[in-house]
Amino acid sequence: MRTNVPACLITVEGIEGVGKTTNINWICECLAELGIPYIQSREPGGTALAEEIRELLLMPREEDMADLTELLLVFAARAQHLHGLIQPALTRGEWVVCDRFTDATYAYQGGGRGLDVSRIAALETLVQKDLRPDLTLILDIDPAQGLARAHQRGAPDRFEQEAISFFTRVRNTYLERARAAPERYLIVDAGKPLHDVQAQIKQGLVYFCQRMANAQQTTSDAHHGT
Amino acid sequence: MRTNVPACLITVEGIEGVGKTTNINWICECLAELGIPYIQSREPGGTALAEEIRELLLMPREEDMADLTELLLVFAARAQHLHGLIQPALTRGEWVVCDRFTDATYAYQGGGRGLDVSRIAALETLVQKDLRPDLTLILDIDPAQGLARAHQRGAPDRFEQEAISFFTRVRNTYLERARAAPERYLIVDAGKPLHDVQAQIKQGLVYFCQRMANAQQTTSDAHHGT
Repeated sequence: MRTNVPACLITVEGIEGVGKTTNINWICECLAELGIPYIQSREPGGTALAEEIRELLLMPREEDMADLTELLLVFAARAQHLHGLIQPALTRGEWVVCDRFTDATYAYQGGGRGLDVSRIAALETLVQKDLRPDLTLILDIDPAQGLARAHQRGAPDRFEQEAISFFTRVRNTYLERARAAPERYLIVDAGKPLHDVQAQIKQGLVYFCQRMANAQQTTSDAHHGT
Repeated sequence: MRTNVPACLITVEGIEGVGKTTNINWICECLAELGIPYIQSREPGGTALAEEIRELLLMPREEDMADLTELLLVFAARAQHLHGLIQPALTRGEWVVCDRFTDATYAYQGGGRGLDVSRIAALETLVQKDLRPDLTLILDIDPAQGLARAHQRGAPDRFEQEAISFFTRVRNTYLERARAAPERYLIVDAGKPLHDVQAQIKQGLVYFCQRMANAQQTTSDAHHGT
């Protein structure tokens, strides 16, 4: 696997309380079992500076944060994350498993806040050029169920304070994006028992790795004229 | 003056040690004398959140900040400043005197860091739409002279640590921008004695206010069919 497949960026998306931490750990276990070197990270964050930007984004505050400020802070953190962690890891041949990425920006700032999608797309191109996740797992859950879980975790951050209608728009944006480009997304029903969720994730990962290895093999064969 | 002229955004630009603080205080004195209501602010900063972003930008750190991260943080702070302070003040009819604005982004991130000007222009339009300063004073000084002054002020911030060649590029960008749109800029030779500098600023402000009043009068006459 290591020698055949170029390093991939796997992102994991979903609303609050969907079980991202547990399932990301499971994804990492699966990759380890497949012999794939990887690092684990999160957005916003992933470097010391990007984590400081995360704090600005999540901390509840009296001052009303403009939607555009939020969007620019998200992409500032992402630019730093790509520069300091993701790109160097991929160059070294290590896969990156990331808790949230640009799909979250489309879902939260686009779907949730109602920011113009063309603005998000322009910033995505500015910051990422042609880099996109190779695989995005969407952990899908009913917002009421997710928020009930999230609220057991203590004081809500600036996003967790939003109304359920906000998270319904976030969820719908995730699902719409997955339907529009099904080859890149794996939708996982995260409302099922953990055992079923993990089985679905593992199956999806094995299938993805085989697909990548086959694609690489085809490219390699073509290069060698076979 | 108050009743005739719509509120204006006056920005003051220049490299480190050029005497911005002293001269901005002088600008405010002149406006007060002319009977113009105003507020004074600065970039990056101007609101509590924008000042926190300023801290991220200025604080020297071990982690290498990507140029694009810096650019996005600058515009995130600007979006918040416009949302929370500048736009409300202009709407109330108060002039805004701002220590640095988007010309500084062209000068520092464009000229200094070498970031593509088209990226800066795209973010300028995204964040400001058609808002541009009505008048920009460029306090111009030889970088060696400016930095010698700035270094007397204590520990240098992340920008003050740059080499003199960086500030030469910053200065040249300011001057090029002023030459390309002379109607918006007033270049002040800040290497001269303070008395001469202040006289030049006052004359420029009085002339600007007269020009704005005349323009307003012409518009008003046209509306009334005279």
